[in-house]
Amino acid sequence: MKSYLGIDLGGTDIKVGVVREDYTIAAKHSAPTMHPRPAEEIVGDMVAAGKKALRTAGLSEADINCVGVSVPSMVGADNRIIFANNLDWVDYDLAPVFRSFWDIPVRIVNDADAAALAEVYAGAAREFDNVVMLTLGTGIGGSIIIDRKIYAGKDNCGTEPGHIIIAKDGEPCTCGARGCFETYASVNGLIRGTVRAMAQYPGSIMHDMCGGDVSRIEGRTPFDAASKGDEAGQLAVDNYIGYLAAGIASLIVAIRPQAVILGGGVCNAGESLFGPLRKAVKPLTSVLGTASISLILKAELGNDAGVIGAALLTRSADRQVAPLVILREVAESMSQ
Amino acid sequence: MKSYLGIDLGGTDIKVGVVREDYTIAAKHSAPTMHPRPAEEIVGDMVAAGKKALRTAGLSEADINCVGVSVPSMVGADNRIIFANNLDWVDYDLAPVFRSFWDIPVRIVNDADAAALAEVYAGAAREFDNVVMLTLGTGIGGSIIIDRKIYAGKDNCGTEPGHIIIAKDGEPCTCGARGCFETYASVNGLIRGTVRAMAQYPGSIMHDMCGGDVSRIEGRTPFDAASKGDEAGQLAVDNYIGYLAAGIASLIVAIRPQAVILGGGVCNAGESLFGPLRKAVKPLTSVLGTASISLILKAELGNDAGVIGAALLTRSADRQVAPLVILREVAESMSQ
Repeated sequence: MKSYLGIDLGGTDIKVGVVREDYTIAAKHSAPTMHPRPAEEIVGDMVAAGKKALRTAGLSEADINCVGVSVPSMVGADNRIIFANNLDWVDYDLAPVFRSFWDIPVRIVNDADAAALAEVYAGAAREFDNVVMLTLGTGIGGSIIIDRKIYAGKDNCGTEPGHIIIAKDGEPCTCGARGCFETYASVNGLIRGTVRAMAQYPGSIMHDMCGGDVSRIEGRTPFDAASKGDEAGQLAVDNYIGYLAAGIASLIVAIRPQAVILGGGVCNAGESLFGPLRKAVKPLTSVLGTASISLILKAELGNDAGVIGAALLTRSADRQVAPLVILREVAESMSQ
Repeated sequence: MKSYLGIDLGGTDIKVGVVREDYTIAAKHSAPTMHPRPAEEIVGDMVAAGKKALRTAGLSEADINCVGVSVPSMVGADNRIIFANNLDWVDYDLAPVFRSFWDIPVRIVNDADAAALAEVYAGAAREFDNVVMLTLGTGIGGSIIIDRKIYAGKDNCGTEPGHIIIAKDGEPCTCGARGCFETYASVNGLIRGTVRAMAQYPGSIMHDMCGGDVSRIEGRTPFDAASKGDEAGQLAVDNYIGYLAAGIASLIVAIRPQAVILGGGVCNAGESLFGPLRKAVKPLTSVLGTASISLILKAELGNDAGVIGAALLTRSADRQVAPLVILREVAESMSQ
């Protein structure tokens, strides 16, 4: 069975996977990113990890003809990393550095786009062609898939659905605007709301849960507290779901995907998140009528999504370019 | 030169145009809709107006093989009118009624989609393939064009970019949600804001401009007043542009079109609208970086857009279907 190599470069770990044609993972390997250190060293470790995973899978370099790399950055149409703030890389051309260690074509893709592509081919969105995927983390990574391909907008420069404005003149966002979806509906937004709810409820069990240190509040804290009947926890959860619903509803009325796929650790709250969320989104999208409702589903691939998505990018079938609805397709010549 | 027949059915007028291959209009005709009256009578007048325009253009029925009809309603993938609130038509199957008067295939399209298609082929977006068009009227009609075709979302059921939420828990919208873009940035929203500003400024010249009757305030009133130095007028304009900017910025970060095209009478304010609007959108979209900026442009076709868009729908070249990025394509058999 044909296999593909994907590398998921994150601020903490370099994850590598050899992905089979049927989307199962033949071999995995990971190494610490150890940022900050020179970019060349990180790239060298990416190459070493990739080669190691290949060997573990019983494959040789001749078995693959391209490497897909997922990065936490907007990626230019010229395959360059525009700004990876977790790595302090600005306008970084990774491919030639990679090729100085291993002379093979490299395709670079934004991590949210890689995860979305993976969910569409191998995860929760297997049955769908057009999907919005949101990863709820420190921020909200977002990606739009149309016709089973990454939709990257004008000049293929990428979209940022996490930065739609849901509260005009609201809280400041790291992007410089105010009231962005991610300000409220990221895990950081959830934690901020939880800390506010705790201040309102001095008797909340969450004060004990974090040992009196609010810096230890996690995204799961209010869900856990709410499940034990804690009012402050329930308030934080309800507020959070309200914001999440507003952003998701906006994306649904504008794009009307078959499904919105949600990823990130907070989704482990399961039905205590998804049940009320679906209920909250419904009246906010009633303008679309009752036929043809967009589903809201939990991502299935977890930490493997980036590796699988990056690997998928190297399949020739996924390298076909449709006008303006294209993969972040980069002519191999650019990385040669 | 080949010509095409488009009919733009509105709550007030039935507009008909024979549109040439080069997008010029060979003949126009219009008739009052005279709603309320039986739907069959309105459809009969649409047919009569269409035939009259054909004769005026020196053409016969044999010169066209299809009629395009733009309607103020979401249109189902089955060519049915889902809900035209200006006409009180619910789940109305116009095509067979039309064909009882004139046996010719009929293609039905949402009016915002028709206008957007027209602007892409013949208007302000001639040079672009992916565009968001917003018509600022009583509400905000919105349409997304991808790859020069109407993007109608899941099951081809249509999108509603005017109903993204820009102010969570804000003012109630006619759709049942709160804080929708159109609640604030439609002409109705502008007028409401103007009346509020007038109440705040009893000395505003707008009180005289409307003869003391606020029901006579129009979208142009605050712009005219602001141009004469009226503080209340300027306040209303500034607030309006702030809301318009928030909604447009959201659509730009999510969809990153080459251009956002704005239509509707309020756009006649020209640079006093577009100048400050572009300035307000810029910081709200800075997350996308400084390369590949989406343009914000004024629609060019005005009242002819619906007729031209409806006519374009009947061109065989525009009837090609691409998966999920398709015209509201309806098999001719459905209307037969």
